[in-house]
Amino acid sequence: MKELNYMFNPKQVAVIGASRSPQKIGHAILENIINSGFKGEIYPVNPKEEEISGLKSFCSVKDIGKPVELAVISVPAAHVVKVAEECGEAGVKGLIVITAGFKEIGSEGLKQERRLIEICQEYDMRMLGPNCVGLMDTHTPVNASFANGFPDEGNITFISQSGAMLVSILDWSFEMGMGFSRFISLGNKADLNEIDFIESCAADPQTKVILCYVEDIADGNRFIEVCKKASKSKPIIILKSGTSTAGAQAASSHTGALAGSDRAYEAAFKQCGVLRVESMNELFDLARAFSTQPLPHNSRVAIVTNAGGPAILTTDAVEKYDLRMSRFKKDTVDKLRKNLPDEANIYNPVDIIGDAMNDRYHFALKTVLEDNNVDCALVLLCPAALTEPEKTAETIVKLSKDFAEKPVMSVYMGGKTLAEGKKYLTDNGIPDFTFPEPSVRSLQGMVRYADYIAEKPPVKKVKLTGINEDSVRRIINHVLKDKRVVLLGHEASEVMTAYGIPASRSLLATSEDEAAKIGTEIGFPVALKISSPKIAHKTDVGGVEIGIYSEKEIRNAYRRIMEKVTYYLPDAPIHGIEVQNMVDDGVEIIIGMSRDIQFGPLIVFGLGGIYVNLMEDVTFRLASALDNVEEAKKMITETKAYTLLKGYRGKKQADMNALTDAILRTARLVSDFSEITEMDINPVRVHHQGATALDIKITIEKKE
Amino acid sequence: MKELNYMFNPKQVAVIGASRSPQKIGHAILENIINSGFKGEIYPVNPKEEEISGLKSFCSVKDIGKPVELAVISVPAAHVVKVAEECGEAGVKGLIVITAGFKEIGSEGLKQERRLIEICQEYDMRMLGPNCVGLMDTHTPVNASFANGFPDEGNITFISQSGAMLVSILDWSFEMGMGFSRFISLGNKADLNEIDFIESCAADPQTKVILCYVEDIADGNRFIEVCKKASKSKPIIILKSGTSTAGAQAASSHTGALAGSDRAYEAAFKQCGVLRVESMNELFDLARAFSTQPLPHNSRVAIVTNAGGPAILTTDAVEKYDLRMSRFKKDTVDKLRKNLPDEANIYNPVDIIGDAMNDRYHFALKTVLEDNNVDCALVLLCPAALTEPEKTAETIVKLSKDFAEKPVMSVYMGGKTLAEGKKYLTDNGIPDFTFPEPSVRSLQGMVRYADYIAEKPPVKKVKLTGINEDSVRRIINHVLKDKRVVLLGHEASEVMTAYGIPASRSLLATSEDEAAKIGTEIGFPVALKISSPKIAHKTDVGGVEIGIYSEKEIRNAYRRIMEKVTYYLPDAPIHGIEVQNMVDDGVEIIIGMSRDIQFGPLIVFGLGGIYVNLMEDVTFRLASALDNVEEAKKMITETKAYTLLKGYRGKKQADMNALTDAILRTARLVSDFSEITEMDINPVRVHHQGATALDIKITIEKKE
Repeated sequence: MKELNYMFNPKQVAVIGASRSPQKIGHAILENIINSGFKGEIYPVNPKEEEISGLKSFCSVKDIGKPVELAVISVPAAHVVKVAEECGEAGVKGLIVITAGFKEIGSEGLKQERRLIEICQEYDMRMLGPNCVGLMDTHTPVNASFANGFPDEGNITFISQSGAMLVSILDWSFEMGMGFSRFISLGNKADLNEIDFIESCAADPQTKVILCYVEDIADGNRFIEVCKKASKSKPIIILKSGTSTAGAQAASSHTGALAGSDRAYEAAFKQCGVLRVESMNELFDLARAFSTQPLPHNSRVAIVTNAGGPAILTTDAVEKYDLRMSRFKKDTVDKLRKNLPDEANIYNPVDIIGDAMNDRYHFALKTVLEDNNVDCALVLLCPAALTEPEKTAETIVKLSKDFAEKPVMSVYMGGKTLAEGKKYLTDNGIPDFTFPEPSVRSLQGMVRYADYIAEKPPVKKVKLTGINEDSVRRIINHVLKDKRVVLLGHEASEVMTAYGIPASRSLLATSEDEAAKIGTEIGFPVALKISSPKIAHKTDVGGVEIGIYSEKEIRNAYRRIMEKVTYYLPDAPIHGIEVQNMVDDGVEIIIGMSRDIQFGPLIVFGLGGIYVNLMEDVTFRLASALDNVEEAKKMITETKAYTLLKGYRGKKQADMNALTDAILRTARLVSDFSEITEMDINPVRVHHQGATALDIKITIEKKE
Repeated sequence: MKELNYMFNPKQVAVIGASRSPQKIGHAILENIINSGFKGEIYPVNPKEEEISGLKSFCSVKDIGKPVELAVISVPAAHVVKVAEECGEAGVKGLIVITAGFKEIGSEGLKQERRLIEICQEYDMRMLGPNCVGLMDTHTPVNASFANGFPDEGNITFISQSGAMLVSILDWSFEMGMGFSRFISLGNKADLNEIDFIESCAADPQTKVILCYVEDIADGNRFIEVCKKASKSKPIIILKSGTSTAGAQAASSHTGALAGSDRAYEAAFKQCGVLRVESMNELFDLARAFSTQPLPHNSRVAIVTNAGGPAILTTDAVEKYDLRMSRFKKDTVDKLRKNLPDEANIYNPVDIIGDAMNDRYHFALKTVLEDNNVDCALVLLCPAALTEPEKTAETIVKLSKDFAEKPVMSVYMGGKTLAEGKKYLTDNGIPDFTFPEPSVRSLQGMVRYADYIAEKPPVKKVKLTGINEDSVRRIINHVLKDKRVVLLGHEASEVMTAYGIPASRSLLATSEDEAAKIGTEIGFPVALKISSPKIAHKTDVGGVEIGIYSEKEIRNAYRRIMEKVTYYLPDAPIHGIEVQNMVDDGVEIIIGMSRDIQFGPLIVFGLGGIYVNLMEDVTFRLASALDNVEEAKKMITETKAYTLLKGYRGKKQADMNALTDAILRTARLVSDFSEITEMDINPVRVHHQGATALDIKITIEKKE
């Protein structure tokens, strides 16, 4: 029942807490349902009344005596649990709990909310809310909310975690002439949440675009699973707020500091084809574009204009948003040259100059739309003496229909004299803008989504061989038994080896003599690194020396490190000093992991070395998605590090296969062991052949 | 006469080419002047008519027989020169040439335009246009344009290089209820340009904000000089188009590739306090803010809201735009706690919850505005059952007046039910927005400008000692005589020394033996670098070897370099190999210069080394402004390199004085020698004490 038909298209609705008093929310809900033109049965429930709004009122939902699919509950918080139970007994399938006073007021409310969830499970009901405005479906039609008004029919669904925002947008939509298929106010999301509604609306034939305003996502894995599927059939555009707290959390690892919780959302949205926007303006601009226009086949934009300045601004925006200016075919240019005035510009942007009337717009727009090198068109119009804004609007609408596979948008730059033309465009499905930049931004959203749709699914899941889980299990158990949370260097090295990630040889020395001996054994040059469970950033305290070429140098370095570390951190317990085989060729990158509460392990890849946090040349993926070579490769290409890896300024190309493999194996490792909470491999040196993990930091915690 | 009073407030206006025919532009101009309520004398000039629009028509401007300050010319292009000459003879002071068909149509038009300029100089007239819409001043009032309509009185000046855009904005302003002091259509800018009008409007008591749309700047140095002064008295906000061609130009130096022409504009705007915006929306959002609200003293924002969701979005925007959420004083929090409902949020953002009526808005807004920790306030309002949008609008207007030193803006989120409230706010000087993000962006613009205003002027011009111009002159002359354009390594080194920029010792060896000898002389370690006028990026062709510790190694390296270079570039002329003293401690930065046609030498500073173009961690200044220590220091702090220089992760701080000095000396060098067209010092290594220029590339050309 993922369609949730009993919520959006119920055969019967009971309004529990319906009221005769216009001040009461229960009154507004009942009136809204009646006035929306709902065709099913409506049962007001209020023991104190016999009749409300011309309908017989019932004492309890159980008294109705007939099946009830949906109940909208607006009774005082203290009574909600009892009423919900009665609904269960009466066989109700869906609840909308409008009433506030649950989780949002603290622990007592939370208890009541949990009880509500139990009741829903017990009686196999699904619930929207509590603490919500309700929902609307303009096609059913039904307005099961207390909002003031009912939207025009349309194909946009708006799901909002903020009830006030939903009401605001509804109010605003009347002015904008924007139609909606569904409005859903999520409230506390105790049972049904954005994921359920995205799934439901993906199956709704009346919905073409799904908009969401959310403050959090209820269940990371399910969100990805549902959206991955849903976004292949219709665009899901999300405005996620609360980004400003992201960076605040302290983190001890590089990856943790880089990640922040917003990165996990960013990665999740990317991986499941969700379009993320940064403002309400962008959300609704994109909604207008998707709701009315076809997806472009490619990103080549044609511009037709009657003025130069606005066309330059638009061209700037085309570059800013990574679209391309279409390069017309010779035929097109010839035709434009032959039929336009001499002063016109016949290349893109096509400037049909200030005295252009409707016929010239018609000719130019038709000509560029006929060109195979044009994927979409923007029409700019500035008011001038001879301009015919209304007639030109008709032309744009007609040509947009004739070229139904190419998106067309307009920028009518002006107010008073263009108002009628603008209205005609909007009413007839052309997204019209007053200034150029938002129109291009909207086109970019469409191109991004079209690219996502066109992406082929990964050929196959990667098969990783030579993985020794038992060995890692043993190391982790040993460290936990030792009551440590950070693996020592040589332990981390062993973990790498067990998962087939090549790491440089590293052995622990507890004395100068031992260090010198190890150095001679593993061969020079070597690096020395302090080994202490309390020292995270070894370089910062003088705990690292590199480029050591002799036994004598080892001894000196050993002493220097010990001196410095005991000076800076006199209380840190010291296990000794790791002696590591030095590898100094290749590109330094970082592979790391931080665990997100909502989305699980999050893998970072990017430019490595000590400047990683300064440069922030990094990209993120959820480990769950890093099960195929294509995704790992895509990740690599998103960074500037990629330029280095390809062979920058005369260097040989680095071993991409070895790198891809290391990323996939890291993802596998952290997926296999939920004990690993944070991990940095920084740097990994990627050579012309092969790669070597040099500095590995693994943090773990005991799982219950 | 920089006020240009004869343009904006002339005592008499002649309309040359005035017409009785409503289709003619000359008719529209005359009607516009009459209808605008212009109080001076109006003289139509048209030899074919006796009377136009009730005014006596003259055969020629010379026939008027009385003084004429301003002439608006709208006659066929072929007659303009003659008419202008007559104006000169008649003692006219200002011309507005509406007629098109000059520079924009090619060489014949350009010839005519040059003739026009000559006439203006001959007769000491100033000219707006040709090929423009004209100008308007609502306070005079005068509408000397053919635009359809006259703006409402206000304090915003809009200067536009695009006539169509000016007409569009005028049309749009009627819908927005936005008033203007002046509209100026620049046209071809043959004489008067944006700089003249910025200067004029800075002196205009009726103008509070200056907006510009420009496609280029006429004279870089004068622009900076004028804006530096003007921006201290009123904000200048510029939308500069044509950014998309910026990156296109090929360049052989690092700095050139990084610069592009847009960087020069960026630097110029920054240096003279111009606020640059990226879209029309932003231009006019900012205009509304500056035109109505006072400048904030600091960046601490208070938010009062009746809904949570929009407040979170607003808080996100506050962080995104680098503003701060105000932290209220204890008194404020106590007062809010005492007087607001329990469910309200009494910290910032103050959420007075959904049932808030006007009284609660009044109390909360007043309380936060009284707090010294609040520099500006945003009021968010979503429509709900009890909301009083109109009354609340009155409250906001009143409190904004009571706290006249703190900017207040509103976000009335909605449409239909808020329309009246929104109108009241707009009409009474509160910038109102429909969604949160643009309101915060506008606040940011105000804060940036307030910061600029508050900046102290640099204490003094730096005095650079130990500069030997003659020596550099000799080297340049020698290279030019040699018909080379790139200085050899040791020549560049000498240039550095002559200007007091410390550079590592570098000597040219023409044989293995000589290289070995030099190495022993200057001391190991040394670096070897190919010396060839044809090789720009030495590393790319194997032309550099570093870390050479012995005579034997020098010889090997010498041979390897020669082998590789002759393999990759068999035809490159080789002068030999530079042997350079190696310096390997310190932070690698770049100082460079590329010369901009408009603005002259442009200095780059940033993270250096071979990754400079990859990282693009750079900032730019015009050399003309780099004459004081403060500016050079500001430049340094704008980069990530600054973090390294301060002493990153346990390293000692680098010598900022030495670095600042090197930047200032470089600016001086390229200002003194216009022969230097491009220059890279990359890297400069900045040590704990001192700095060393390691690789210096100087390109020159002969000056006539």
